[in-house]
Amino acid sequence: MHVGFVGLGTMGREMARQLLSAGHRVTVWNRSPEAVRILVGDGAEAAGSLSAALAAEAVVSMLADDAAVESLLLDDDLLAAATTTVHVNMATVSPELARRAAAQHAEHGIGYVAAPVMGRSDVAAAGNLAILAAGETPVLDSVQPLFDAMGRRTFRLGERPEAANIAKIGANFMLVSAIEALSEATALAEANGLAAGDLLEVLTGTVFPGPVYAGYGAMIAERRYEPAGFRLALGLKDIGLALDAGAGARVPMPVAGVLREALLEALAHGEGERDLAALGETARRRAALPRPDRAG
Amino acid sequence: MHVGFVGLGTMGREMARQLLSAGHRVTVWNRSPEAVRILVGDGAEAAGSLSAALAAEAVVSMLADDAAVESLLLDDDLLAAATTTVHVNMATVSPELARRAAAQHAEHGIGYVAAPVMGRSDVAAAGNLAILAAGETPVLDSVQPLFDAMGRRTFRLGERPEAANIAKIGANFMLVSAIEALSEATALAEANGLAAGDLLEVLTGTVFPGPVYAGYGAMIAERRYEPAGFRLALGLKDIGLALDAGAGARVPMPVAGVLREALLEALAHGEGERDLAALGETARRRAALPRPDRAG
Amino acid sequence: MHVGFVGLGTMGREMARQLLSAGHRVTVWNRSPEAVRILVGDGAEAAGSLSAALAAEAVVSMLADDAAVESLLLDDDLLAAATTTVHVNMATVSPELARRAAAQHAEHGIGYVAAPVMGRSDVAAAGNLAILAAGETPVLDSVQPLFDAMGRRTFRLGERPEAANIAKIGANFMLVSAIEALSEATALAEANGLAAGDLLEVLTGTVFPGPVYAGYGAMIAERRYEPAGFRLALGLKDIGLALDAGAGARVPMPVAGVLREALLEALAHGEGERDLAALGETARRRAALPRPDRAG
Amino acid sequence: MHVGFVGLGTMGREMARQLLSAGHRVTVWNRSPEAVRILVGDGAEAAGSLSAALAAEAVVSMLADDAAVESLLLDDDLLAAATTTVHVNMATVSPELARRAAAQHAEHGIGYVAAPVMGRSDVAAAGNLAILAAGETPVLDSVQPLFDAMGRRTFRLGERPEAANIAKIGANFMLVSAIEALSEATALAEANGLAAGDLLEVLTGTVFPGPVYAGYGAMIAERRYEPAGFRLALGLKDIGLALDAGAGARVPMPVAGVLREALLEALAHGEGERDLAALGETARRRAALPRPDRAG
Repeated sequence: MHVGFVGLGTMGREMARQLLSAGHRVTVWNRSPEAVRILVGDGAEAAGSLSAALAAEAVVSMLADDAAVESLLLDDDLLAAATTTVHVNMATVSPELARRAAAQHAEHGIGYVAAPVMGRSDVAAAGNLAILAAGETPVLDSVQPLFDAMGRRTFRLGERPEAANIAKIGANFMLVSAIEALSEATALAEANGLAAGDLLEVLTGTVFPGPVYAGYGAMIAERRYEPAGFRLALGLKDIGLALDAGAGARVPMPVAGVLREALLEALAHGEGERDLAALGETARRRAALPRPDRAG
Repeated sequence: MHVGFVGLGTMGREMARQLLSAGHRVTVWNRSPEAVRILVGDGAEAAGSLSAALAAEAVVSMLADDAAVESLLLDDDLLAAATTTVHVNMATVSPELARRAAAQHAEHGIGYVAAPVMGRSDVAAAGNLAILAAGETPVLDSVQPLFDAMGRRTFRLGERPEAANIAKIGANFMLVSAIEALSEATALAEANGLAAGDLLEVLTGTVFPGPVYAGYGAMIAERRYEPAGFRLALGLKDIGLALDAGAGARVPMPVAGVLREALLEALAHGEGERDLAALGETARRRAALPRPDRAG
Repeated sequence: MHVGFVGLGTMGREMARQLLSAGHRVTVWNRSPEAVRILVGDGAEAAGSLSAALAAEAVVSMLADDAAVESLLLDDDLLAAATTTVHVNMATVSPELARRAAAQHAEHGIGYVAAPVMGRSDVAAAGNLAILAAGETPVLDSVQPLFDAMGRRTFRLGERPEAANIAKIGANFMLVSAIEALSEATALAEANGLAAGDLLEVLTGTVFPGPVYAGYGAMIAERRYEPAGFRLALGLKDIGLALDAGAGARVPMPVAGVLREALLEALAHGEGERDLAALGETARRRAALPRPDRAG
Repeated sequence: MHVGFVGLGTMGREMARQLLSAGHRVTVWNRSPEAVRILVGDGAEAAGSLSAALAAEAVVSMLADDAAVESLLLDDDLLAAATTTVHVNMATVSPELARRAAAQHAEHGIGYVAAPVMGRSDVAAAGNLAILAAGETPVLDSVQPLFDAMGRRTFRLGERPEAANIAKIGANFMLVSAIEALSEATALAEANGLAAGDLLEVLTGTVFPGPVYAGYGAMIAERRYEPAGFRLALGLKDIGLALDAGAGARVPMPVAGVLREALLEALAHGEGERDLAALGETARRRAALPRPDRAG
């Protein structure tokens, strides 16, 4: 298939590469030209303009946030001129943007699919992303080969695109809340003389198997927050999406509120570029750990 | 080994049975005589008094809470008369009680082991509990055969008994926080037109594998909270232990605070005897779900 | 002075009237013409266009929110054509908007003053508003006669306009937090058999004198939330401004987070058009009050 | 009247003095003898034993907390021997203790009045306390002369003693919540370049008149937390009473939960002996204030 690919950040470039590897023709566009040059070296074609990328059979975008999508792609002139049949937005954006985008694309006769992904850039590089996709069934069917190239599994979440964004936002909210709970439990352990590693062994050996608790738990236990697999500042963005989605639908989310304040506190202390696991430091700082003489 | 077993509730009776199955001699004591009769039918001996149970080589207790342990077992006259060498307290109690109990037992020359367990009564009945044990190493070694009879795995958590209680409290805190996060995410999904089952499939198929998320998630998605595997009222007790342990060691636990209010709200609405998963109803009630016309 | 007045809502029309009463010449503009007609009846002139209003010596605006200010007044063409020397923005908007607006006005050689007010429309009608003003001193001096006409007291809060917005946001945050605390305390009282009116008498007779606690307290005690002096939905907007201002400056505000969830819950239950005091109902609903048989 | 007075702490000794000044005969008892000697110098009689103090016509107690009341006064032998007709408990204790104490006193034919007070020791020394009293009307009437000697105003809160404790707990909860809100608003102001003093002037000059906001606000603005008028550690005790009373009656109190974590954080940082206003430091610490270069 001929695919226009917009947005070659750390995630986007790996995903575009997977499309190339699977034999698709990929025309790439990116705000800064450097990433374009690299992808061209990998076999992609450079779009002369954003408009040119939207002339492909399908367009995949992987942009930073709502504002980037809005300013670059939700332009009536651009969409009116576009000859593509479908736009697959794989970024983590708000359900509200998805609703507006779907309506605006429909006006121009273009299908709109929301397909945010789970997995970091190394997972993307291995073609192992989990893809959360929603949109009209025939449209989803038409881009399934692209999903098959980029991911190991596609979850189909119905015909309304925003449902996919909600799923992604919900999953990230749950991830951050698990890390905050780990942080609080670890501070409790440390202040009471239980080694963080021992607590972690109990947790992962009983109720919480799997790599997430083991991975983040180890980072918290070892107080090792670099390199950042998932930047803390990005976690704040995602919790903001959850709170906004909750407000839009009038759903109180008190745990999300607590996460927001903890993430903000971490940012205030200069930890935004560390891994999300640095929430462990906020819990420790609040408890004034480590202490010269152990409390208990 | 000759074991005195104190406390034959739903958990205790299954644990005592496992000891019998493994060939230990078990002398049981319980406040109400009915459970004693049943265990005697299984091969146990009935203790004529609490004191008689404390004449066994080792004593295992599985009582409801701090108050029960305190009023029944932390009695200086009783302990002075006891000829047992070790008391293994397997209940979920506070680290503060463990500290006091250990000191008091030491005064009477009796070893004290904290060994709370993870798993419900069906898990206990299968001898598959996870046992979180802490105490002096030789003392732990001496009761390891009992642990082997009751559990599938023993986690050794150091020489200070209260460390085991902290591990148990931390694990339960994390469990309740996972359920609350699931509840909030599910309400967010429902209010935005994403089926709870679809969200759950994404979560368990990506970041949160294992039976806990799948099990509680299904109960929340299906709004099925009976029979209660883990009673909500018991969850409030456990969060109270976490908050108190935090206060004792001066460790703020904001997520635990949020859980407390949500559990209290559930109790106020008569849901204390339902499963912990009924936290899902609190999240839905707050969001006024279901709604005649879907918000979004 | 010749004043252009933009925004004739319930507050704006009363403020414009005070300017007329004080002898100023007032040229009014409003999105819907009805309010314009009324003010013309009071002696104002109708601006043929927004641009015409910006030809007056000073411009006062009283618009609904950031979005309204942004779309109507932060237009470079409009500002380039404007001959006014100063724009006094009296709405409750974000500090971030104030910063951008001040910079943009400066580019066009126009002074910018932030001067949000405290007081409802009846207070505005009596010329008794409290005005929180910030901006360059000579500019503030130049519009002080306008403040004197509209308010009983002007607080000068320095040269940086956004400081005035922060003061207003901080005051409203504190007001909502007082109402939520009253709501929780009242639910606690009711559930324990203490009459809400008795609690209120204690509070206002000891630590919390003044009309705010007495007024909101009486509404909560009597469960009387209409007519709305301060609409609950507006309270959510203001708490949103506080949380956003906190996030912008990386200041965690956990109480504001709790207020947000309580207000959202009230909105989900259809209470957005009631008075802020309806937070009392959220506290009662959470506690399942009233109860057939009193708990305690 | 002949009054037995139990508990001569900073508050109790001033209250006993007021009784002496009003011409009452006062027999005092205190755990440590020093305070007794001082009061005897003021005209009181020393009770040879606690029992002797309970032989007076009325007994007033002003002890530290539930535990002190329970261990000293809720003793069946002591109460059986007592010839007093009424016990007026003026300490800040739990409603649950009040319920039990009232029942136990009734068994021994002794009236029980709960009458916690508002005001610090300097207010007590001037006889200006506010007294929150509840109990059976004739019993209250009988001790009104004592209240008149110790306070400037008595609030009668019905026949059930615990109602008075709830009123006191509710008032203190509201006080701490006002201080926390002030702390958060002040941090927001500081991080945005608004002077704390300016914010305070706005607040006290508009919605929040009276000495409480002015007094605590000034301490926060000036970061002056000594001497402690109201110790922060005592604030945590009072919030604990509020949360426990809420739990007992199944009333969620999310703001109280937030206060608890903030107070614990302050304690972890060694601020327990400072004034409650030191909550301002927790808000600042979380926001990493002051900052070398101002955020915004």
